[in-house]
Amino acid sequence: MPLTQDQIDDIERMRAETQPTRRVVSAALEDQLYRAVPLLDHGFVRVIDYMGDDNAVVQAARVSYGRGTRKVSQDAGLIRYLMRHRHTTPFEMCEIKFHVKLPIFVARQWIRHRTANVNEYSARYSILDREFYIPEPAQLASQSTANHQGRGAVLEGEEAAQVLDILRSDSAQVYEHYSEMLNEGTDGQPLDPDRSGLARELARMNLSLNFYTQWYWKTNLHNLMHFLSLRADPHAQYEIRVYADAMIEMMRAWVPLTTDAFEEYRLGGVHLSRTALSILRRMLAGEQVTQADSGLSAREWREMMGALEQD
Amino acid sequence: MPLTQDQIDDIERMRAETQPTRRVVSAALEDQLYRAVPLLDHGFVRVIDYMGDDNAVVQAARVSYGRGTRKVSQDAGLIRYLMRHRHTTPFEMCEIKFHVKLPIFVARQWIRHRTANVNEYSARYSILDREFYIPEPAQLASQSTANHQGRGAVLEGEEAAQVLDILRSDSAQVYEHYSEMLNEGTDGQPLDPDRSGLARELARMNLSLNFYTQWYWKTNLHNLMHFLSLRADPHAQYEIRVYADAMIEMMRAWVPLTTDAFEEYRLGGVHLSRTALSILRRMLAGEQVTQADSGLSAREWREMMGALEQD
Amino acid sequence: MPLTQDQIDDIERMRAETQPTRRVVSAALEDQLYRAVPLLDHGFVRVIDYMGDDNAVVQAARVSYGRGTRKVSQDAGLIRYLMRHRHTTPFEMCEIKFHVKLPIFVARQWIRHRTANVNEYSARYSILDREFYIPEPAQLASQSTANHQGRGAVLEGEEAAQVLDILRSDSAQVYEHYSEMLNEGTDGQPLDPDRSGLARELARMNLSLNFYTQWYWKTNLHNLMHFLSLRADPHAQYEIRVYADAMIEMMRAWVPLTTDAFEEYRLGGVHLSRTALSILRRMLAGEQVTQADSGLSAREWREMMGALEQD
Amino acid sequence: MPLTQDQIDDIERMRAETQPTRRVVSAALEDQLYRAVPLLDHGFVRVIDYMGDDNAVVQAARVSYGRGTRKVSQDAGLIRYLMRHRHTTPFEMCEIKFHVKLPIFVARQWIRHRTANVNEYSARYSILDREFYIPEPAQLASQSTANHQGRGAVLEGEEAAQVLDILRSDSAQVYEHYSEMLNEGTDGQPLDPDRSGLARELARMNLSLNFYTQWYWKTNLHNLMHFLSLRADPHAQYEIRVYADAMIEMMRAWVPLTTDAFEEYRLGGVHLSRTALSILRRMLAGEQVTQADSGLSAREWREMMGALEQD
Repeated sequence: MPLTQDQIDDIERMRAETQPTRRVVSAALEDQLYRAVPLLDHGFVRVIDYMGDDNAVVQAARVSYGRGTRKVSQDAGLIRYLMRHRHTTPFEMCEIKFHVKLPIFVARQWIRHRTANVNEYSARYSILDREFYIPEPAQLASQSTANHQGRGAVLEGEEAAQVLDILRSDSAQVYEHYSEMLNEGTDGQPLDPDRSGLARELARMNLSLNFYTQWYWKTNLHNLMHFLSLRADPHAQYEIRVYADAMIEMMRAWVPLTTDAFEEYRLGGVHLSRTALSILRRMLAGEQVTQADSGLSAREWREMMGALEQD
Repeated sequence: MPLTQDQIDDIERMRAETQPTRRVVSAALEDQLYRAVPLLDHGFVRVIDYMGDDNAVVQAARVSYGRGTRKVSQDAGLIRYLMRHRHTTPFEMCEIKFHVKLPIFVARQWIRHRTANVNEYSARYSILDREFYIPEPAQLASQSTANHQGRGAVLEGEEAAQVLDILRSDSAQVYEHYSEMLNEGTDGQPLDPDRSGLARELARMNLSLNFYTQWYWKTNLHNLMHFLSLRADPHAQYEIRVYADAMIEMMRAWVPLTTDAFEEYRLGGVHLSRTALSILRRMLAGEQVTQADSGLSAREWREMMGALEQD
Repeated sequence: MPLTQDQIDDIERMRAETQPTRRVVSAALEDQLYRAVPLLDHGFVRVIDYMGDDNAVVQAARVSYGRGTRKVSQDAGLIRYLMRHRHTTPFEMCEIKFHVKLPIFVARQWIRHRTANVNEYSARYSILDREFYIPEPAQLASQSTANHQGRGAVLEGEEAAQVLDILRSDSAQVYEHYSEMLNEGTDGQPLDPDRSGLARELARMNLSLNFYTQWYWKTNLHNLMHFLSLRADPHAQYEIRVYADAMIEMMRAWVPLTTDAFEEYRLGGVHLSRTALSILRRMLAGEQVTQADSGLSAREWREMMGALEQD
Repeated sequence: MPLTQDQIDDIERMRAETQPTRRVVSAALEDQLYRAVPLLDHGFVRVIDYMGDDNAVVQAARVSYGRGTRKVSQDAGLIRYLMRHRHTTPFEMCEIKFHVKLPIFVARQWIRHRTANVNEYSARYSILDREFYIPEPAQLASQSTANHQGRGAVLEGEEAAQVLDILRSDSAQVYEHYSEMLNEGTDGQPLDPDRSGLARELARMNLSLNFYTQWYWKTNLHNLMHFLSLRADPHAQYEIRVYADAMIEMMRAWVPLTTDAFEEYRLGGVHLSRTALSILRRMLAGEQVTQADSGLSAREWREMMGALEQD
């Protein structure tokens, strides 16, 4: 279970209080504030704080463009214009702070996005809980044969059962040994008075990468969209994609016009290379183009045809 | 005058409205929100938005240090501890957005701080106003003879009068010519129908570096303190220091505990080198140390003695 | 003239010396090292140092993908793959350092790219030279009527002559007054012994935005491509585009495979929105789509049709 | 063993070749280039590439300060001046690229430094080797009782033996199960033809945090010093400090003047707070100051007295 009853009570207590502010307020995001969306078996994501909204993007663009922007006066139109032409700085005026609980191997991918502020629970200072990720059977995929980083067919029968069994029993064992090496009870007293207990910063190395950690992760709207465009992508690993998908819905509550433009121009769009563009011109002129005379490799041709097919 | 009556009315209209929020609120900063502090002859700084407060710093530290931090339980003590030991990430959890109007030569120094989000009024899109900085007579300093970047004694009499006269008349002239080259009335129609008018992106090059620009500038509390520690320093140029000084007071309204710790450990502190530290040990042991046997250059000795004197 | 004879001699002296290194060497870039490409009337760009080459990109990708990459074994193919799929980190392993002399209004645009290291000539410490940018007559454009930031037709006849006259005489005058206020001869002695001279950090404010400054600008290959994709674009201002164009040729000497991929996937490519992609599918299926039934605004339709036409 | 014979041969082959370059060369660093310094039981650090040297720092400072710097003409003196007065941009002109092999729990601390370029070996694409970190007995410390993140006394006798036994046997077991779930031989063929094998991106989650990973890590000299000042500090965890210590020696070969200044002003220096400074003034004036009348907490007093004692 991702949250204890104490945590849920704490969240509801925080939600019960409101104060007046002169700042911009996003009513739809206030509705969700602090509440955790459960993900995987013990993870979650929730919004802790935010700054700005769609209107702050517009306002920032108007400072930049001053009197010159009178004609693009509709907010939605201006936001679409900014997104289409990669005018990214107005989106940097909005900021959001998430609290995320996630397996360590997911955290290791996530942290590669350097343009964010992070405060992670420290296993040098504190003891990690006994919480580890075990995939749903539907997620137990084999290695893709087509793609070095993808997943193939789902494992079945005995092989699936063995994998789940290994993951569960090894996780339980490394945690039991972690606790034993620490030799520290919940009251901070030694479990076994004859042993000193290993330092936390050392004992943690026995835990496996499916154990859960948590952090505050704060970023601006431009960097958030960059993160989401990579991590909500079908090529992203399933275990990080579920977080990205949940965060897009939070973003939609917060900045609906920006989210529409993001889906129109970034998530739902496609980038064509110079050669792909010239092929397209030939096709539109009525020519039957084949891979052989396209100038594209078989792989790029397949990618291009995939993009042009109905989805 | 830094603000027009229209702008003042707009600010008061925005201040009149409040909405409920579940987010952290800084009541003292809300009091100042949107209001401009006038600086120099046409400049100002004001806070447009913010996120978090002292408590958000504490909360972030507690995520990091988890159960381990029970003993440093006082908020002020924890914030002082974080500042003293350079644990900077909790301060990154707070964000603030300023609207600043400032001379271009000040903006050129300011923008060198790269860790901020900026939207500047664009003179490619829009026409700059006829506003330029003329120093107060008390600020008309000569070049320092001791320091390559400092100011010396204040100019007096005829020389001061001549300098002010040059600055005023050249500024007026370059703006008049800027307008003439643009050939564009406030209604957007040509002033002289027989001329096309030069593109804005070109005409602007005739303006001098004392003309005013404006921008939104957004940064987190850690980067703000870094900026302020450099720009509120006595070695900073007066024309940027007045902005930094005003921003410290805004910071104090927002995060008073952090501001206290910042003044205690950063602004009011001093860094001693290894050699300076060894000299200090000799002095505390009763030795009379002179520059000649100190191991320091004359310049470093002077700097060290300056720091140790009563201020 | 961008360079003095002393500077040219200095460059040739540096070029005459070589030393052995175990590092990766780009022979074609070594050929150009230190030599300045003149731009505008007094500007230039030159490469001062570099680190890595196409092979360093490949090597970094192979660390990331380890044994998994055996099959994409051709370097050019791997670099194209990385570019196509936005795997940006291998490109960050290469670094380049330029020395650039450029008008201040160009420097103000350029510095907005924050992901670079910069050391600029300081007018607080030093005296700027009497060098200012005057456009070629062919660059004296009027304001675009179609686009708030573009240029329209070139000014002609008397208007052009007047503009050039204004720019030249105002620039000469503000520099003369700058020198007079400084009151400092080339020997560092006062020109007029009865005056103190205004501090450099103040006197500089009288100079206009077409005066030249210079800096070292160092960035990695990924950030360089981001800069070039925005500044070599037809929408960029001419006066910065000439720098970007020259830098692309330097990049080609340095990392030819990466430059090919950059031109194929970034500079020569086009991004289609979700709606544009669906229109394309209808067109390829033989439907005659018009703007009216396209779902695109007139402006976006025009942009899309422009991209699909032969160039 | 950190390196295989193949890798050692490869390094020596690369070291055997030199090419002429017009760039700045650091002869002392060339001597070490590519060679790995072994650390912990299977780790290493080595320099793969670099750009610039002490002279590049000086040259960048001279661009900034132009004619104004004539008087601080000695290179060492200028570098000390820059370090003392936090003029950081000239140090950003030098860049260095390391190849590091390190346990995952060390990598997790290291990656928190965001101002670097990183390419890490990917366990989504590739199979990790059977290499895990087991501390030396002398490093098997208990939790510090004085400090939440420190280490206390070294474990002894049976407890130490048990800890080593747990770490070794759990590491061996999780790797065996990792291989079994992957079901992939060194030839890429299934070990057991009746099983599909679990995807690499999933199987890796069974590995513990003491397994080794590797990456290229590239940063500039300013950011390197920031990293080293935090990670070569006595409060840093031993397992990352050994890397920082080795990297300081590499830095010394590369930029000896900067390394001297770094040790004088950063590593060997101390920062005094405003209150500490006022206490020092009282002490130098002959007053006997005690903690009780110092205005410092017991903890801060202890820290200050510790800094003032002979080391």
